[in-house]
Amino acid sequence: MPGERSPNGGPTGCLQDYAYVCILFCMTYRVGVVGASGYTGAELLRLLAAHPEIEVGWVTAESNAGAAVADLYPSLGPAYGTLRYEAVDTSAFAGADAVFLALPHGESQRLVPALIGTVEHVVDLGADFRLPAAEYEKWYGEPHGAPDLLEHFAFGLVEIYRDEIHSRPHVANPGCYPTAASLALAPLLAAGVVERTGIVVDACSGVSGAGRSPKPMSLFSEANEQVSAYGLLSHRHTAEMEQALGRVAGAPVQVLFTPHLVPMTRGILATCYAKPSVDGLTTASLLDLYRDQYDGEAFVVVVDEPSGTKATTGSNAVHVTVRYDGRTGTVLAIAAEDNLVKGAAGQAIQNANLLLGLPEAHGLTAVGLAP
Amino acid sequence: MPGERSPNGGPTGCLQDYAYVCILFCMTYRVGVVGASGYTGAELLRLLAAHPEIEVGWVTAESNAGAAVADLYPSLGPAYGTLRYEAVDTSAFAGADAVFLALPHGESQRLVPALIGTVEHVVDLGADFRLPAAEYEKWYGEPHGAPDLLEHFAFGLVEIYRDEIHSRPHVANPGCYPTAASLALAPLLAAGVVERTGIVVDACSGVSGAGRSPKPMSLFSEANEQVSAYGLLSHRHTAEMEQALGRVAGAPVQVLFTPHLVPMTRGILATCYAKPSVDGLTTASLLDLYRDQYDGEAFVVVVDEPSGTKATTGSNAVHVTVRYDGRTGTVLAIAAEDNLVKGAAGQAIQNANLLLGLPEAHGLTAVGLAP
Amino acid sequence: MPGERSPNGGPTGCLQDYAYVCILFCMTYRVGVVGASGYTGAELLRLLAAHPEIEVGWVTAESNAGAAVADLYPSLGPAYGTLRYEAVDTSAFAGADAVFLALPHGESQRLVPALIGTVEHVVDLGADFRLPAAEYEKWYGEPHGAPDLLEHFAFGLVEIYRDEIHSRPHVANPGCYPTAASLALAPLLAAGVVERTGIVVDACSGVSGAGRSPKPMSLFSEANEQVSAYGLLSHRHTAEMEQALGRVAGAPVQVLFTPHLVPMTRGILATCYAKPSVDGLTTASLLDLYRDQYDGEAFVVVVDEPSGTKATTGSNAVHVTVRYDGRTGTVLAIAAEDNLVKGAAGQAIQNANLLLGLPEAHGLTAVGLAP
Amino acid sequence: MPGERSPNGGPTGCLQDYAYVCILFCMTYRVGVVGASGYTGAELLRLLAAHPEIEVGWVTAESNAGAAVADLYPSLGPAYGTLRYEAVDTSAFAGADAVFLALPHGESQRLVPALIGTVEHVVDLGADFRLPAAEYEKWYGEPHGAPDLLEHFAFGLVEIYRDEIHSRPHVANPGCYPTAASLALAPLLAAGVVERTGIVVDACSGVSGAGRSPKPMSLFSEANEQVSAYGLLSHRHTAEMEQALGRVAGAPVQVLFTPHLVPMTRGILATCYAKPSVDGLTTASLLDLYRDQYDGEAFVVVVDEPSGTKATTGSNAVHVTVRYDGRTGTVLAIAAEDNLVKGAAGQAIQNANLLLGLPEAHGLTAVGLAP
Repeated sequence: MPGERSPNGGPTGCLQDYAYVCILFCMTYRVGVVGASGYTGAELLRLLAAHPEIEVGWVTAESNAGAAVADLYPSLGPAYGTLRYEAVDTSAFAGADAVFLALPHGESQRLVPALIGTVEHVVDLGADFRLPAAEYEKWYGEPHGAPDLLEHFAFGLVEIYRDEIHSRPHVANPGCYPTAASLALAPLLAAGVVERTGIVVDACSGVSGAGRSPKPMSLFSEANEQVSAYGLLSHRHTAEMEQALGRVAGAPVQVLFTPHLVPMTRGILATCYAKPSVDGLTTASLLDLYRDQYDGEAFVVVVDEPSGTKATTGSNAVHVTVRYDGRTGTVLAIAAEDNLVKGAAGQAIQNANLLLGLPEAHGLTAVGLAP
Repeated sequence: MPGERSPNGGPTGCLQDYAYVCILFCMTYRVGVVGASGYTGAELLRLLAAHPEIEVGWVTAESNAGAAVADLYPSLGPAYGTLRYEAVDTSAFAGADAVFLALPHGESQRLVPALIGTVEHVVDLGADFRLPAAEYEKWYGEPHGAPDLLEHFAFGLVEIYRDEIHSRPHVANPGCYPTAASLALAPLLAAGVVERTGIVVDACSGVSGAGRSPKPMSLFSEANEQVSAYGLLSHRHTAEMEQALGRVAGAPVQVLFTPHLVPMTRGILATCYAKPSVDGLTTASLLDLYRDQYDGEAFVVVVDEPSGTKATTGSNAVHVTVRYDGRTGTVLAIAAEDNLVKGAAGQAIQNANLLLGLPEAHGLTAVGLAP
Repeated sequence: MPGERSPNGGPTGCLQDYAYVCILFCMTYRVGVVGASGYTGAELLRLLAAHPEIEVGWVTAESNAGAAVADLYPSLGPAYGTLRYEAVDTSAFAGADAVFLALPHGESQRLVPALIGTVEHVVDLGADFRLPAAEYEKWYGEPHGAPDLLEHFAFGLVEIYRDEIHSRPHVANPGCYPTAASLALAPLLAAGVVERTGIVVDACSGVSGAGRSPKPMSLFSEANEQVSAYGLLSHRHTAEMEQALGRVAGAPVQVLFTPHLVPMTRGILATCYAKPSVDGLTTASLLDLYRDQYDGEAFVVVVDEPSGTKATTGSNAVHVTVRYDGRTGTVLAIAAEDNLVKGAAGQAIQNANLLLGLPEAHGLTAVGLAP
Repeated sequence: MPGERSPNGGPTGCLQDYAYVCILFCMTYRVGVVGASGYTGAELLRLLAAHPEIEVGWVTAESNAGAAVADLYPSLGPAYGTLRYEAVDTSAFAGADAVFLALPHGESQRLVPALIGTVEHVVDLGADFRLPAAEYEKWYGEPHGAPDLLEHFAFGLVEIYRDEIHSRPHVANPGCYPTAASLALAPLLAAGVVERTGIVVDACSGVSGAGRSPKPMSLFSEANEQVSAYGLLSHRHTAEMEQALGRVAGAPVQVLFTPHLVPMTRGILATCYAKPSVDGLTTASLLDLYRDQYDGEAFVVVVDEPSGTKATTGSNAVHVTVRYDGRTGTVLAIAAEDNLVKGAAGQAIQNANLLLGLPEAHGLTAVGLAP
């Protein structure tokens, strides 16, 4: 029966309740995707093809301008047929309801000044508007090119910054690692049950995180049958973790972050260690804490047993669990996500939904592709 | 605007046009899935979670009865929450609009006699009702247990048997390899441009095709960094290919089929060779033939350059291309699919849509998950 | 020229110097492998096929008794031709110079009492003789079945226990994770520059570590495109790490160990965290410390940039590096190894070489198979 | 006992018999490797590190000149320590006993004219000297740059061209696919039991075959979870297959070759189809034929059941099997190899052994790395 909630009607792409209302009120928003030939851009196209109220009107690419979307991504052919990448031209987006930027860091800050006069909402998936200017310079080794515009961007880690996202016109979508690590640790710091120093985030990422530009470390023959640590002590995503966790803690937080590359395409698993700051913790009480904090969240799944990354493939879900180890006096928190979805394009759409006034979970699913 | 066809509004899960109508007329059908703890069963649950008009009312499993769906498949937790597998009991399905059977061969023929008195439609994903009794005995080495019921089942290779599916109450969903190979070769045999003997199908499959029951050949450490041929000369899916291609040819067809196991989870690529029976073939004329034959098909994508399997991951699409080699006098046809979707659960839902009178593409997408 | 040391004449299988001497003095030792159908047993056979002075006289297996080695491992066919697995019979090993036991934990302690009267040297690759009886009972949940024999076994982590190995007739070969983690951390604890508590070992292992017995988590379709943590807080290898590191520290050491399964067949990467106990550490000084401590070791390779696991595939090498993070006050140490070689069969042969009075590196290589 | 043949003394790296003789007579030959930073070059270095009578004196690379071998290949660090790649300078090889060229096609023909005045033996692993000038131009689309030198090169498919290799100073090492396919089919054509037209070679290769230069199709995220066909109808290796098989047949042979890329690093599986030209074939008689033809070959392993590629990883072995299908009248032959060893660097060393007068199997193993 229409409008009846099915038992399996979680936050999938087709909420019947919403469809019921939609017929009367809903709009189709038209958006552009800049940098749509990279993996993050292609994932935006994949997800938007299933979005009931957003349609893609413009796709741009730099080196691939002129190519058909379906040539680079045959997977997208059935939805985007003959659509071709155009060269970037910010004035062309006049009339767009929103524009997604999926660009290497440093490029958004050059485009945004012109763009925000033309389009109402920008969701930047790059690093340019995530950090205060001083922090940006410290971690990226160059001064920020548009510091005055930073205040127009909310940091789009939705479950932590939802209020701020509602109050600003644009969003800086967070990095893949910071999303997983921050959601793993946030309840602990919000509740003040762990120390704000001595936190370790040890994470594994699939190779798609390195993007589509050919680099030796991204070659199949290099990455296959290999686990390697990289960016020791200095990975730039550290700053975003400290920013998000500092916000929930209400005071500075220090994180040591070690990323690893593992032989899979998608997925991030963040295994996090922290020192208790209070007595009497138990695994059961921590799991309760997590369930309370994430109550009502469509995309955070608190699990008793640690999920692997495959639980989240292709979905916007983050699975989290937590343990207290009395023997060594350590709290262990683990999060799994798809780096291209909740870690990039999916969260960007979650943010766009908020900016456009749509239901936050609209067009997104929490159901993963497994096996 | 509601009801306006978006340029990217292909056969995704959420057709806005349909939603417009749906509000007035649509029904929710309740179905059961028998054998829902295997990979094919789990894939049915994944796809049905996104289906706007089918909801899952019953899930059964043999050895896993009592377990929660989310324990075996954390990926399904967000949609199926606390749902648990029950032991199989055909009488429990009274009132089901349809039942999907995802069982090892030999088991459906024991359940179906009791089941078809209780439920209106059965979609059997196993091998039991795909072949005439004599063929079944020849390839499976044992007499068929319910030969009288075979006439109630259409062979569910939709693009070839659509008329028959409309005229029978139940469907025997075809095997994964026969779906790919038959759709690769059918236009050639329908047009009578190749010989009906001397056909070779050389195919590669991901390991999920071997199912979830632990077998040495399915172990990661055995299947990884390995390509191997198996079932030489005698794979049972040969019979289904010869059946489907014989039907379009209107005369017996003979196929030599060599399957290979490759180190990926999902996907089948069928590379097929046939001898021309007419003069004057060209690659261009053959591509035209394919485009004509598959015109209007939501899930068959005719491509100029051969797609790999990743173009189809998670989707119900089959990508096909064709070549004529004047040098050796050979026609080469290639098809790519996701063995668990178009090769199993997706096509089963395509069939169920037909049986229930829903739009054939309902709840299914042709857009693949890549990278 | 014979006897001339080639510039690339590292610890490979064929030292020309040694061959020069060998002609005059060398012996061929005959050994047995119990449990030779598992992955560790098969790796022993692979490595021993290249050993210039050890030949395999007996191979036994339980469920695979009667099968040819080449049926289970076609890779070994060229060396072992028609050799078949026999059922285990300890009396059959009379005359063996050494016997390797590659069995699930609990089984060696039943065989060893009869065996050590018959053969001179036992190298047990299982867990039975690695820990004191009380520790064994604590971590394995059952009393030890042959506590009196423990004193005859040295813990075979060669670089740490070499003296003890020389003084005892038998060796308990260490686990795969403890080998990597202990060699990563040992120089720090030996030098007393880190605290003995608050140590975290976060490690990733290939799936071969789970063995050849089919289990769901070892299936390709489960392990592929997946990273997952397991054995949270309680993995049994923790005890071996604490034992080895406690020995070099000269006082108890406490470790929190989190293993992860990653989609590759071979390899372990251990990323380890410790708190400095002294001032003035730098990365450079720590790298010097490591080079000093491992000076002369044939199989420990100290590297400036962290090696991935592929650097060690098929070889007996462990690559280690170390960092000091002044920002968070943490020492980071990383080790890579092949879990089946230095983590199992290779180290077992290294131990057997010591027991038999052969050069420690004999028949082993430190050169990895890459890409 | 020294000199006694061990039961496992197959063609491993360390033949004790040979060592016995070696002390009296053996020499160390010094060789150079040009293009040693690519995968084929690195594999030469890996294998030569274990060769008892060849040492590497020179390594060159173009874009990587100046880098240490160990920086690009940490796996080779233990053998090559501080050795650095130099820029190519043919005069520098004066005094080399042999030089291996591991270069993209087109480059060897520019180097060889200068080189063969300086060094006694060249083993070219590229395509430049494999085909007659006319065939080269036809398949590579450009005239050959040094046609006069072609007669100095034997086609180094050892098992077929051994006599010719003995009679010429230089060798053109065959391609990876032609080695597997030709060894799979040669006995059939030598015995004249199949037609010389209508032959199909359908092969799967690991991604290392595409080399170390970054290309989109070689990226992990593109190649993983993907099987794709490429080079349809026109792959250049077709010419080498037709050349080698034409030689054993004594008359022209025509092959249709379809290569596929599969998600593994190493390995080629060639599945080949041919039409019988005589009556009365059986699988048993064909297996006998293969065993006869390959009797005494150290690296061709004739197996009853088809081996997968993993049987050959890291080794110089080719595993072959054959079937006769009476139902469709087809002969099926399958070969598995490691594309970087028997398909490239291993066979190059096999050839160098012949050129230098060493035992053909010297320094090579037929034992594979599995799992």
